[in-house]
Amino acid sequence: MSTLEMIEAAADRLHGHVRETPLLTSPFLDELAGRRVLVKPECLQHTGSFKFRGAWSAISALNAKELKRGVIAYSSGNHAQGVALAATRHGISSVIIMPLDAPQLKIDNTRALGGEVVLYDRANESREEIGEALANERGLTLIRPYDEPLVIAGQGTTGLELARQAAELDVDRGDVLVCCGGGGLTSGIALALEGHAPGLRARPCEPEGFDDVKRSLATGQIQNNNAAAGNICDAILTPQPGDITFPILKRLCGPGLSVTEEEAMRAMALAFLRLKIVLEPGGAVSLASALFRKDEIEGDAVIVVASGGNTDAEVFGKALEFLT
Amino acid sequence: MSTLEMIEAAADRLHGHVRETPLLTSPFLDELAGRRVLVKPECLQHTGSFKFRGAWSAISALNAKELKRGVIAYSSGNHAQGVALAATRHGISSVIIMPLDAPQLKIDNTRALGGEVVLYDRANESREEIGEALANERGLTLIRPYDEPLVIAGQGTTGLELARQAAELDVDRGDVLVCCGGGGLTSGIALALEGHAPGLRARPCEPEGFDDVKRSLATGQIQNNNAAAGNICDAILTPQPGDITFPILKRLCGPGLSVTEEEAMRAMALAFLRLKIVLEPGGAVSLASALFRKDEIEGDAVIVVASGGNTDAEVFGKALEFLT
Repeated sequence: MSTLEMIEAAADRLHGHVRETPLLTSPFLDELAGRRVLVKPECLQHTGSFKFRGAWSAISALNAKELKRGVIAYSSGNHAQGVALAATRHGISSVIIMPLDAPQLKIDNTRALGGEVVLYDRANESREEIGEALANERGLTLIRPYDEPLVIAGQGTTGLELARQAAELDVDRGDVLVCCGGGGLTSGIALALEGHAPGLRARPCEPEGFDDVKRSLATGQIQNNNAAAGNICDAILTPQPGDITFPILKRLCGPGLSVTEEEAMRAMALAFLRLKIVLEPGGAVSLASALFRKDEIEGDAVIVVASGGNTDAEVFGKALEFLT
Repeated sequence: MSTLEMIEAAADRLHGHVRETPLLTSPFLDELAGRRVLVKPECLQHTGSFKFRGAWSAISALNAKELKRGVIAYSSGNHAQGVALAATRHGISSVIIMPLDAPQLKIDNTRALGGEVVLYDRANESREEIGEALANERGLTLIRPYDEPLVIAGQGTTGLELARQAAELDVDRGDVLVCCGGGGLTSGIALALEGHAPGLRARPCEPEGFDDVKRSLATGQIQNNNAAAGNICDAILTPQPGDITFPILKRLCGPGLSVTEEEAMRAMALAFLRLKIVLEPGGAVSLASALFRKDEIEGDAVIVVASGGNTDAEVFGKALEFLT
């Protein structure tokens, strides 16, 4: 079970190793959104996404014997890079199971950061099965991408930071939009807000057609996506919310939001133009929700967690075409 | 005369109004540069460049009578936006004199931020003369872009921040590379470092062919550029170092560095890929110097002040072509 105490303990372990990202604003985005928009750019985190927080949290909690044997993770790319760098900085080895269709950049980066990459077929194989089998075989500790209390605690440190930063800007009520795959970041932030900023409410944001969390929250039961791939928001395409994350999301979050691929790309373009940050499609669905689903949002201010920026020049170039 | 005390006083006036930008790092950039690279992304500052600091510093020091009459500024774009927003947030009016060939985005933004824009011909007219004439005519206070002690003091707050941030990362010796036009940012940072981090040395970075500061430092006398335009680094094309900034630069800075347009574009591409930030060409010459002039730099670590990110999709797209 993840708790606020675990998040606060993770924040202590992360201190000095994880970057505190700022809270960015632009009068141009405020005008588009019809309210104040505060953006927490986790693309500026080490390895280009919030995933480094959860990876550091989990690895820094291992004992000496576990550290010596090393860790294993499965990931579409951002968790992979986070675990690889966190492992390397702890002086231990990491095996990373990645889908064959992950962006080449993420595969290359994971290797360069010290990870041993094992590729699998997203459509026909289960990364969970491969991961557990390899973990057992080599005695590696599996660092799950989201359904793991220590990982949720690490991601939740994002919520501790934004609660304090929002208070400094006199924002203590409103929605906190979070890009959501399996729900690790969203549930961690929701727990942190419950303890430190009870007037702020986390809301998961997803791509249309892959809105398993939104539908799960609406029905009160875990729902699956029909497809496992086929959307530009590769970082947040997960089959369903986690068994650990969903009860937290159900208890604490507001309704889910979903946006089209084009809206995610338009948000990337506006983040380039107005915030000078690089977002990947899956890291921009929260900003897209703030800009293009404003009637579904409550309050005078909205907080946007922009979760990652690991995109390539081709995809980014396509997003920038929306500016012309 | 600008002093450390003026910078510290400016920091007090800026507190809560200007964003403290983080210090970013990437193991990939470290490898390319052959040493640790710490990047201070002033592109994340309000209005997309450090210029907001100097503008706020100057405007916040005006008396009630001066505030009521309003301010005027001349700028290729970044100072324009900084002054326009700082004036608007003080509830006062601003007139901004901009070159006809400034990027359309900068002109549009300056207007949207509340500035009254007056265009001039960079090749045949003197912005200084136009500025002084309009200032006298309407009783406006002229906010000079760099040769103004209050502006230098505001830009110098960048140096106060980075001195503290570098110390937290155990960096207390090395070069601080600063994108340099008229020298306001470089001289302000140099003064701040003299007081707070004497082991760090500011070094101006310029585009080749517009390296007036580098040549001025080498000869000990103020040197001019032959041309006033014709380089993609539009933000830092100034005819010569300022009468106030140059003596500070001469006393405190290390030798200047200069890079080609292509090197600036390559640095933009690497900042996109490795730091997830958007730099404009003139804001990337410091990073380009760190990456492509490493034999001219001293120390195990180098600090890079990436001064602005106000570029458009077309220029950015061209920079990203260097990644393929």
